[in-house]
Amino acid sequence: MGKDSPGQVSTPGSRRSVRAVIIGSGNVATQLAPELQRAEVAIVQVYSRTREHAEALAALLGCEATDQLSEVKRGCDLYLFALKDDALAQVIAAMPATGGLWLHTAGSMPMSLFEGATERYGVFYPLQTFSKGRRVEFNDVPFFLEANSDRDLILLKQLAERISDRIYFLPSEKRKYLHLAAVFACNFTNHLFAMAEKVLEEQGIPLAVMMPLIQETVDKIYTLSPREAQTGPAVRYDEEVMNRHLAMLGDAEQREIYRLLSKHIHKAAIHE
Amino acid sequence: MGKDSPGQVSTPGSRRSVRAVIIGSGNVATQLAPELQRAEVAIVQVYSRTREHAEALAALLGCEATDQLSEVKRGCDLYLFALKDDALAQVIAAMPATGGLWLHTAGSMPMSLFEGATERYGVFYPLQTFSKGRRVEFNDVPFFLEANSDRDLILLKQLAERISDRIYFLPSEKRKYLHLAAVFACNFTNHLFAMAEKVLEEQGIPLAVMMPLIQETVDKIYTLSPREAQTGPAVRYDEEVMNRHLAMLGDAEQREIYRLLSKHIHKAAIHE
Repeated sequence: MGKDSPGQVSTPGSRRSVRAVIIGSGNVATQLAPELQRAEVAIVQVYSRTREHAEALAALLGCEATDQLSEVKRGCDLYLFALKDDALAQVIAAMPATGGLWLHTAGSMPMSLFEGATERYGVFYPLQTFSKGRRVEFNDVPFFLEANSDRDLILLKQLAERISDRIYFLPSEKRKYLHLAAVFACNFTNHLFAMAEKVLEEQGIPLAVMMPLIQETVDKIYTLSPREAQTGPAVRYDEEVMNRHLAMLGDAEQREIYRLLSKHIHKAAIHE
Repeated sequence: MGKDSPGQVSTPGSRRSVRAVIIGSGNVATQLAPELQRAEVAIVQVYSRTREHAEALAALLGCEATDQLSEVKRGCDLYLFALKDDALAQVIAAMPATGGLWLHTAGSMPMSLFEGATERYGVFYPLQTFSKGRRVEFNDVPFFLEANSDRDLILLKQLAERISDRIYFLPSEKRKYLHLAAVFACNFTNHLFAMAEKVLEEQGIPLAVMMPLIQETVDKIYTLSPREAQTGPAVRYDEEVMNRHLAMLGDAEQREIYRLLSKHIHKAAIHE
């Protein structure tokens, strides 16, 4: 990456190979690591605290596996920490000194997690939802980048551009809001789909009949703001319809969710 | 429609013209009426209690307008009531005897609203979200049909098939659950998008950066059930992340929505 990177393997006339270690073996690691390979990053090792998980991903990538942080290879260019938020600080604290650029992929965790642990560090956050058994098309995935030096930020940008067309620089303080917004727009949204599916299931109706409606709900907000696009009984607080709906819901918590969201929609509507 | 329909205009060799009156001038009426015209239904009149609204839609359709129910033309084939739920019963009660087939387009209202008011009636429910300033592609819109006679159900099916490729028969008792599910999957989902937009706006980030994530959230559930597709901190009840998120939300109601949805996601996850 730079002249003075450790572990540099340079072949005259060819793009020099970036060598990377993947720390983690969950959904993000499993999808991002092969993508880095396609982008000509040489993955040399996978670490996971669960040996079988490390080995499974390493087999996919054709590299070494370890379940011991002490065995992580020194002197590579990149160390990509693709871990659950709650494991991240712990693993960083236990990492040996390796040199290279340390990166994490967590939307809600600050870059400062790396402070004091190593010299060069940054964040490589793909804003996407990764599920087992579903491959993500990375060229559309927005990457939000941060680094503790301008030089590494440029390196990160060059790396991200090999994978995606949507590259942004964003500091940790703003990235955490992005992650919060993603919980609303993705995680909570998906749960609403699950609740809709349950209501339909009990009537023997497949969720598939609802896909054109769901698709249009999303298509709309490419051109209208969600506030303009809002429809439904809660907008005009149609209590008759809402009470009928509440009476149809068997689950007290679901009724409370229905009530709260309806109130919040109405409040937003009268402020328009 | 049938030999004995009133007001029949039959031209030898051509498909006989169905004559219809539109009762209502809101988003559903405004989008569905031109679609019926394209399907060779002759719209002869629009009623709205607000004269200007009736006239605006009538001008678009090239037909007559009225704001008096007593002036509604008698003897047409179809009377399409595309009204807000709370206006529907009231308008039906005030309608003159016209003959023909009376239809409403409301997901949550039973067909029995028409009982005693006229002889032939049914439901013509397009499961879609209709916003001003956004044209819906009807051939993908699922239509849920119901009628008080088999003969009229077949007529309704033939009519719906001219507009859409997705035709279903569904009794009122089940249709109301479909409507409830649609509130979750569409109205509430859109409000989550609005909440995400607000969080981002305050950080100067456009909602557009989130569209690939939102699109993938929907694309996933074409192949995975929403329960399998669920991701995010609430699945494993990661309280550290969740508490940080709650601290970032300024609005007490939004915090309550966050808490309730997170609990509900976690409860569903541990029951898997």
